[in-house]
Amino acid sequence: MAETEFPRPIVTVDIVLLTPREERLHVALLPRAAEPFADMPALIGGYVHVEEDANAESAVMRILKAKTGLSGIFFEQLQTFASMNRDPRDWSVSIAYFALVPRDLLDNAGVALDLRPADAVGELPFDHADIIRAALERLRGKGAYSTIPARLLPEVFTMSELQAIYETVMGERLDQSAFRRKINDLNLLEEVEGEKRQTERARRPTTLYRLKSPLAVFDRRI
Amino acid sequence: MAETEFPRPIVTVDIVLLTPREERLHVALLPRAAEPFADMPALIGGYVHVEEDANAESAVMRILKAKTGLSGIFFEQLQTFASMNRDPRDWSVSIAYFALVPRDLLDNAGVALDLRPADAVGELPFDHADIIRAALERLRGKGAYSTIPARLLPEVFTMSELQAIYETVMGERLDQSAFRRKINDLNLLEEVEGEKRQTERARRPTTLYRLKSPLAVFDRRI
Repeated sequence: MAETEFPRPIVTVDIVLLTPREERLHVALLPRAAEPFADMPALIGGYVHVEEDANAESAVMRILKAKTGLSGIFFEQLQTFASMNRDPRDWSVSIAYFALVPRDLLDNAGVALDLRPADAVGELPFDHADIIRAALERLRGKGAYSTIPARLLPEVFTMSELQAIYETVMGERLDQSAFRRKINDLNLLEEVEGEKRQTERARRPTTLYRLKSPLAVFDRRI
Repeated sequence: MAETEFPRPIVTVDIVLLTPREERLHVALLPRAAEPFADMPALIGGYVHVEEDANAESAVMRILKAKTGLSGIFFEQLQTFASMNRDPRDWSVSIAYFALVPRDLLDNAGVALDLRPADAVGELPFDHADIIRAALERLRGKGAYSTIPARLLPEVFTMSELQAIYETVMGERLDQSAFRRKINDLNLLEEVEGEKRQTERARRPTTLYRLKSPLAVFDRRI
């Protein structure tokens, strides 16, 4: 059992918290509280607390709540970044997650986050820029085949808002009638009964929808 | 910097080493050398050695080489399993990988591995059965959209062997002419010049192929 005597790496979780702003995905950063890279904006993250966190997801929820006030948002494991040189302190493991938060929910959280366009974050500490790149790639890849992009919207949304958020995630324009036909064929949405929204553009009140299930995956591109 | 004083979890890598046998994917297990679960067959894995391993991939390569003699095979990060109760010793992080090895290469490695059908492994220590399930799901999902399954074949193969390995990975029969047309459209293969193979079934020698690049990804299902 000499094996157990090996020195242990640092273990953290880091969260790529994404939110839409002006049709672009933005990532929420926070100034680092301590060295290394004190005061520099970086991904939201922290140490795993072995006494407190049942698992890595518990650590994510604890840290999101403590640092942003957010809870109940979508998050998913992205990839683990683990090497001897990613952190000046020691051999370090970052179990990275991406999380999605609707615009209003983040605004109401009332925390001062540094929001940057996710595809142009500038220089960041550690390998955080690489982690963000990996998150965008994953979200673009999975977003086209799932309802994950809708988790960037409030619970209730219009069909135009849904199309716009898919376009934001996928970084491309989608044909409106093809989009509506696919969404309809896939049977992902339910109408919110007895509720409509009057928008500036439409003359008649617009139908509101919500997802039938929190997450649906399909095998054709939206 | 009190944060750095937090107790650190155990960090290991675990490898789901998959190989084809009789048209089924099998996973290679090894008896555990030490407690807990000493002598029980389990995934190939070990501690990250912070003095020696540059990163998690280096740990995978070191452990594969040391425990199976294999090097140069395909492997990819799967998912990280991290919780307070997956390992009786302590809070534990397993950075899990899946690796693919052609049948002959594993036979020639000359190590006595416990090969079990990957979808019927029986009871295993830790959460190793869950890790294997996750690996199969990932391989089935990605396999249909990439040349990853071909990494279960020798470098040079026939078209029938390629179709058979896709069928093994995807767990379904594929139409021969549709398969050949797709493979041809995707332009994934090059003919091995000046080399053919005489098989028992075919009257004329069979053309041999190899992958043009180690890994190609496409956006239509094979």
